[in-house]
Amino acid sequence: MSVTAARGFLASGVAAGIKESGDRDLALVVNRGPSRAAAGVFTSNRVQAAPVRWSRRALEDGRISAVVLNSGGANACTGEAGAVDARLMAEHTARVVDVDPDEVAVCSTGLIGVRLPMDRVMAGIGVAGDLLSSQGGEDAAVAIKTTDSVHKTAVVSGPGWTVGGMAKGAGMLAPGLATMLVVLTTDADVSAAVLDPTLRTAVGTTFDRVDSDGCMSTNDTVLLLASGASGVVPDPEEFTEAVHAVCLDLARQLVADAEGASKEIEVTVVGAASEQDAVEVGRSVARNNLLKCALHGEDPNWGRVLSAIGTTSAAFDPDRLDVAINDIWVCRNGAAGESRDKVDLSGRRVTVTVDLRSGESSAAIWTNDLTAEYVHENSAYSS
Amino acid sequence: MSVTAARGFLASGVAAGIKESGDRDLALVVNRGPSRAAAGVFTSNRVQAAPVRWSRRALEDGRISAVVLNSGGANACTGEAGAVDARLMAEHTARVVDVDPDEVAVCSTGLIGVRLPMDRVMAGIGVAGDLLSSQGGEDAAVAIKTTDSVHKTAVVSGPGWTVGGMAKGAGMLAPGLATMLVVLTTDADVSAAVLDPTLRTAVGTTFDRVDSDGCMSTNDTVLLLASGASGVVPDPEEFTEAVHAVCLDLARQLVADAEGASKEIEVTVVGAASEQDAVEVGRSVARNNLLKCALHGEDPNWGRVLSAIGTTSAAFDPDRLDVAINDIWVCRNGAAGESRDKVDLSGRRVTVTVDLRSGESSAAIWTNDLTAEYVHENSAYSS
Repeated sequence: MSVTAARGFLASGVAAGIKESGDRDLALVVNRGPSRAAAGVFTSNRVQAAPVRWSRRALEDGRISAVVLNSGGANACTGEAGAVDARLMAEHTARVVDVDPDEVAVCSTGLIGVRLPMDRVMAGIGVAGDLLSSQGGEDAAVAIKTTDSVHKTAVVSGPGWTVGGMAKGAGMLAPGLATMLVVLTTDADVSAAVLDPTLRTAVGTTFDRVDSDGCMSTNDTVLLLASGASGVVPDPEEFTEAVHAVCLDLARQLVADAEGASKEIEVTVVGAASEQDAVEVGRSVARNNLLKCALHGEDPNWGRVLSAIGTTSAAFDPDRLDVAINDIWVCRNGAAGESRDKVDLSGRRVTVTVDLRSGESSAAIWTNDLTAEYVHENSAYSS
Repeated sequence: MSVTAARGFLASGVAAGIKESGDRDLALVVNRGPSRAAAGVFTSNRVQAAPVRWSRRALEDGRISAVVLNSGGANACTGEAGAVDARLMAEHTARVVDVDPDEVAVCSTGLIGVRLPMDRVMAGIGVAGDLLSSQGGEDAAVAIKTTDSVHKTAVVSGPGWTVGGMAKGAGMLAPGLATMLVVLTTDADVSAAVLDPTLRTAVGTTFDRVDSDGCMSTNDTVLLLASGASGVVPDPEEFTEAVHAVCLDLARQLVADAEGASKEIEVTVVGAASEQDAVEVGRSVARNNLLKCALHGEDPNWGRVLSAIGTTSAAFDPDRLDVAINDIWVCRNGAAGESRDKVDLSGRRVTVTVDLRSGESSAAIWTNDLTAEYVHENSAYSS
């Protein structure tokens, strides 16, 4: 049910002809209210696509009535012309769904540095407007796919209200290709002032902890729109948990669908002096190409884990580091522990646990292995 | 001629049986003086192998008489037992070549977390001592190879003196597998107080700027030994230039021989507000897996370059970035420039030039493409 699981929302997804394949490539999500409260989190990359720049401004007043999304082109690094294109998309969407252009967010994903075929985009927005429906969530989720093998949706319900959403991509700070786009909707009655910290907290421990390949997109966007159509003001804790649960579900789906990956790897750091230390170590381990290759080869090469830990500024004693791979503590006190032969890496899911033995904090980072298929997909992308 | 090009040095390389292949795996380099001045640069990884810890201490007085090196095992993450092994290697070498153990540096490379076969190592040191020769430089260079396809040596001569050296590996902060080890020798009469800053400066703009895969070893070591056997005190500027030239030559050989690579990529950043900015941007671009895949696929995907620049803290305006690939300025002012079709990426050497248009500083980083062969070599390494 995706973005139309919550009441008050319409959506659609059409084939506008932006993708050469003829697949669906343009989606609309419209909030029919009564509330139009919204929050958003955008890429921290300093090179930001035109639609990100537009949407940031549109969100400044905490109010979004519609989102237009396209795959097949990122509209990033397209200069002043690209900025005009993003504005035209917002303005045309505003006309089609009868709202103010400043209440329209724009999300694009695809190849960087190429202008969008604006005639097709504009025509597609018109068609998508005609097809808007309270059953359109799945079509919208399909239309934002790029190299995704499946479309990704999630729904969590509370007492009298619902949070739903859709996502595309294979990472946040680490998209396998192009970008992560996420639109979440809820019919709970929540103000923008509450939505913003709720979304930031949820993203910070879900999408932000996905690190498929360490690369950061120019287009990453996560939006949360609240229609208030349920008429229910949710319990803050329950609502926060629901938003977190939907984000976590979608984040896991991104890792599961990462391009060319054969393993889903969860790096958990425990015993850290601070959460920041835990995240730094987790990210360093998750980004280590040598470890990612070793795990692809089903080799429990814990030396690569220690090398990665050693590049961080986290608090630890090199002679008191413990590392488990799939729960076998192959490294104890910075040296060989239990036999590597005990580690079974034949499954798709792999856990790497690092105990820094320096405190009580912990964090998990999700990543993938590095495979020949990843190289192939990413060497044959734009050409 | 390697480490024996300079007068006053003996070397040898033997097959001690550490490697299962039966290839040479143990080398000695001995400084017969009259001077024993030395300098060293070691990995900045906080997880440091036992031989690195030993050699750091041995170098504290600026005096090294002999170096024992082995391939086939890194003696890293081997705990207290590994520390004893490194000490035993130094002590036995000291007996064999008749010097003080505190004047012996130890270098190891190979798999992390596994004890060395000390009976074979000790016997090998004895044999290597018997074979020491002023012609032994090539044998020593061969004996320190791991996955290197060729052994690497370089020699530069000044008026009356010589600087020579050997290297193994495929990077410094970025070894493709295991480690970079480098031993440089000179017969110039130079004190440790001069050798140290000379070596650090040379390493900082050569080996430190090789970034094959962003991974940092536990064992990286660069040593410079001066025998003074020429009796010539060199012109400081000429000597600095010679050491830099040997380091640059060896660094280039490391990039050319990186495991599984099909492209040698030079990332040059110009127009930077500071050299630090230029290095940060160069390293971010050089480490971007998506770009490395694209260049492997001979795709001039400059959007990946901009994405990588955007993750740095360097001074730049996203709308004033220029990028050239093989001298074609495919990105101007943060958007498409000359046609991508003009870029010929069929050759092995690729240049990526970034103009930040924010100052006068520049830096170059050397890296490789990401290939299916890299994945294969690194997924099948320890098992």
